[in-house]
Amino acid sequence: MAGERKSQSGEERLIELFRPMAKNPGAFALLDDAAVVAPPPGSDVVLKTDAIVGGVHFFHDDPADAVAKKALRVNLSDLAAKGAEPLGFLLTLLLPAEADEKWAARFARGLAEDAEKFRCPLFGGDTDRTPGPITISIAAFGHVPRGKMVRRAGAKPGDLIVVTGTIGDAALGLMLRREPGNPTFARLDSAARSQLADRYLLPQPRNAIALAIREHASASIDVSDGLAGDLTKLAAVSGVVASLNAKLVPLSDGARAVLQAEPKLIEQILSGGDDYEIAATVPENRLGALQAAASAAGIGLTTIGRIEQGEGIAITGLDGKPLTLRRGSYSHF
Amino acid sequence: MAGERKSQSGEERLIELFRPMAKNPGAFALLDDAAVVAPPPGSDVVLKTDAIVGGVHFFHDDPADAVAKKALRVNLSDLAAKGAEPLGFLLTLLLPAEADEKWAARFARGLAEDAEKFRCPLFGGDTDRTPGPITISIAAFGHVPRGKMVRRAGAKPGDLIVVTGTIGDAALGLMLRREPGNPTFARLDSAARSQLADRYLLPQPRNAIALAIREHASASIDVSDGLAGDLTKLAAVSGVVASLNAKLVPLSDGARAVLQAEPKLIEQILSGGDDYEIAATVPENRLGALQAAASAAGIGLTTIGRIEQGEGIAITGLDGKPLTLRRGSYSHF
Repeated sequence: MAGERKSQSGEERLIELFRPMAKNPGAFALLDDAAVVAPPPGSDVVLKTDAIVGGVHFFHDDPADAVAKKALRVNLSDLAAKGAEPLGFLLTLLLPAEADEKWAARFARGLAEDAEKFRCPLFGGDTDRTPGPITISIAAFGHVPRGKMVRRAGAKPGDLIVVTGTIGDAALGLMLRREPGNPTFARLDSAARSQLADRYLLPQPRNAIALAIREHASASIDVSDGLAGDLTKLAAVSGVVASLNAKLVPLSDGARAVLQAEPKLIEQILSGGDDYEIAATVPENRLGALQAAASAAGIGLTTIGRIEQGEGIAITGLDGKPLTLRRGSYSHF
Repeated sequence: MAGERKSQSGEERLIELFRPMAKNPGAFALLDDAAVVAPPPGSDVVLKTDAIVGGVHFFHDDPADAVAKKALRVNLSDLAAKGAEPLGFLLTLLLPAEADEKWAARFARGLAEDAEKFRCPLFGGDTDRTPGPITISIAAFGHVPRGKMVRRAGAKPGDLIVVTGTIGDAALGLMLRREPGNPTFARLDSAARSQLADRYLLPQPRNAIALAIREHASASIDVSDGLAGDLTKLAAVSGVVASLNAKLVPLSDGARAVLQAEPKLIEQILSGGDDYEIAATVPENRLGALQAAASAAGIGLTTIGRIEQGEGIAITGLDGKPLTLRRGSYSHF
């Protein structure tokens, strides 16, 4: 009947939660089948998608706002490593029947905060029921000047290997979350324990130095599957050896304390994953400029090794001897 | 250790399956964190994401190649309705432990066929394990000249309402799949039964007339949640009434036979969803040109009503009386 109003469906109520963060005019306030984005003239659109699944990438009782932020940040981290500035994202949110509207509201609140913080507005999405766990897939878009995306390819013998922030915290945070009674963590005070746990809960992507990476790095990769494994991938595509000194890898106080108690956890630190830092290679004469940009952005940047001729990865362990890891990087299969 | 080769992980084997369809140079052969696409100068990138979930949008025993095609086609259908030409897509594929590599190989084969057929190459993706059902989220990108995406907004009183193909087949095909013994379907021969079932299994998106829609339509929507509900959405955003005559709605022979046996299934036909046709509004003086383009593409195009002043939807039933549907469109919540 003409003019008749239907009561809002659950799907429409969900969309209402997300509408406020669809601020770009190209999102058409989520009132169309699709969105449009006009990248700056002369640019490439950088495309990335990454999903997180309840019970696999986050715990079922993680706060909904943190889950939302993790879902977006794992994608933002790739844009940062590629030297791209965010344009926006598309969201797929699959909810089991037991996820209530309170959960969804808190999820939307967290997502809105990060969309604002990282200037990465929502362009559209899809919400559906699933008989499985909460599942979020985000496709994020960024832009770089044409041809300027920083690749995994491009590292040259003589380049230095640098990494942002600290490595291993998230992997140790996950261990701690899974085994809260593990004696290795006994010497940590509660601040150090929460710092490790927080790094697993909430990645800190390094978008603030994306432009400096684009300007100075010869190659770059998002550290998400473990530093050693990700550098192995970068080295393979570049056709070089990544030569890495474990002693130089930047550690938080918490990770350092854990490592003192249990030196073999160097394996976990180097290959555990979920760091969401940037590992980049940089010609020696560009290091100063990159370092200065990182300092200005308040982001730590540490030289951990050097690119050499050959193929693969060579790690010098804490004892000064060559270190072979049991597994290079994380694979879900 | 430098130069050491690891055996391929399951994830790497999966990526190998998808690499052949990552033909665009911007996909970097799936060997980087992200991809790039350079839209034609002066264009908008059209963005769309839609997910399908095992047990919700497809049956667990549907052939893997058909599942892959459905996942891509539900997105291609939106690009078609918006008048956009495909640029490519990103894939999120979440597999339970019991999905074997044979399933994945068949999935990849189907996806490759459609990527080729619709000229929509793979740019990147994410594969992961899930404790839930097989879940596929695709983000598809297209392009239109700047500002030329065909919106839901724009329908004007006096415009004709047209729809491609036939309506209701997929909804009836789903009924038939769920209730194979339902006597309503008894009068159908096996060809008609498989035609209905096939329309549910495999959408036929109308990308072949996307450019004509862009040239001639005043507004347009992908018919995925039911013709009546989707036209209600178009009418709401356009600020008009969509006045629709059920007698004019194009039906396949199978749907016509079912409707003769069970006239109340007009409700299912008009609101069942999964049609993946295009409903568009077109000024009367553009109908001929749009019709000619549809004929040239081998796609049926039928006038089913008219846009009027007011708000909402007005349906004239098969009996010539106003018809009110119990539910306008499909919502998973």
